Amino acid sequence: MITTIGLDADDTLWHNETIFEETHAKLGALLSRYHDAATVERRLFATEMRNLELYGYGIKSFALSAIETAVELSGRQIGADEILAIVRLAQDMLAHPVHVLDGVAETVATLARSHRLVVITKGDLRDQERKVARSGLAAHFAAVEIVSEKSPDAYDRVLRRHAIRLDEFLMVGNSVKSDILPVLELGAAAAHVPYHLTWEHERVESQPEHPRFFRLASIRDLPPLLARLV
Amino acid sequence: MITTIGLDADDTLWHNETIFEETHAKLGALLSRYHDAATVERRLFATEMRNLELYGYGIKSFALSAIETAVELSGRQIGADEILAIVRLAQDMLAHPVHVLDGVAETVATLARSHRLVVITKGDLRDQERKVARSGLAAHFAAVEIVSEKSPDAYDRVLRRHAIRLDEFLMVGNSVKSDILPVLELGAAAAHVPYHLTWEHERVESQPEHPRFFRLASIRDLPPLLARLV
Repeated sequence: MITTIGLDADDTLWHNETIFEETHAKLGALLSRYHDAATVERRLFATEMRNLELYGYGIKSFALSAIETAVELSGRQIGADEILAIVRLAQDMLAHPVHVLDGVAETVATLARSHRLVVITKGDLRDQERKVARSGLAAHFAAVEIVSEKSPDAYDRVLRRHAIRLDEFLMVGNSVKSDILPVLELGAAAAHVPYHLTWEHERVESQPEHPRFFRLASIRDLPPLLARLV
Repeated sequence: MITTIGLDADDTLWHNETIFEETHAKLGALLSRYHDAATVERRLFATEMRNLELYGYGIKSFALSAIETAVELSGRQIGADEILAIVRLAQDMLAHPVHVLDGVAETVATLARSHRLVVITKGDLRDQERKVARSGLAAHFAAVEIVSEKSPDAYDRVLRRHAIRLDEFLMVGNSVKSDILPVLELGAAAAHVPYHLTWEHERVESQPEHPRFFRLASIRDLPPLLARLV
């Protein structure tokens, strides 16, 4: 019997990767006189991966890696105006309105009446808090846990902190890599609700086969799944 | 009787503001052909304060504000090499060794035998976790709480989460603004251990006068204070 539901935030509760995609397109346009968009994408991703250990996730990390990439790809010719434009892109992302995904508001309100809901998200502390606050969903959450990496250890710490038993916990999210595999590894249940875009870093080849793994087309399928699991 | 001690991290457990001061000096040198060091400092601080709500605290926020300041102060003339140098300054700060303050290692080890120690720090999630891990002190801490702002509400959430009673809690830190005043406001005790540098944003005019406020010259004075409070 599931008593506690862990909810990923970005691309599970609200749109996020779409905002990054729009920004990548603007960055590609900004750097188009130096390189084609595919090269910009490839080099930006390489810079992000090189800096991940140092920077962690989130928009500020993205911005610093984008600036570094722009300097390198321009052969150190990029101008101050273009650098400032990249800073402004990041500021626009940080100030972006939070658009809750279709079906989320009703489903979260329904689930909160019967289950303890804990948001478990990685990334930048202030940015994630801002999005929770702006989502209109905050009152439904028993807790919001922002972690620096979604490892089995990180989930284990969150579960211990809230005295959640493994057999009473279901994690829901769009990333097989971050929301599903580490939770299954711990021995808890996980439901995958895909988003139409996945950041390259979050992509995995294989699909889990596991008795406690569930694939849902929409977050709206969560209440019927929970009813079946009783 | 104090059972739980909250410990600030930066400039309470390890040196931090000194690293920022060194970086400010390098930034001043980098921009010296555009403006004098005092102007750079003033404009950088203004940029940081303008961006604080959006960025939050930490090195990545500092770096983005430094880049924005450099573009503005150079009349948009700054070169890509100089921008990259600012990015590298931030990376050096993030990779900087953690130097624990004098007296901290012994005092924390002593206190951990008799008290529950909870680190309560603000700033960047990954950077603060990295510093805890590198400090050699992690095994002494019952918990590490990284918050986006040290408000009375934030302290209240931490205390509730760990079921800490107000009359059993003492917060220790170098910032009167962040470590002392909000904790006294809640009704718990607080001990100020000054650091020789204070970031302008953390400066306050008045000194607290409060029966549960204590001023210590060094963290080494903490065990005798706790003995007195029994």
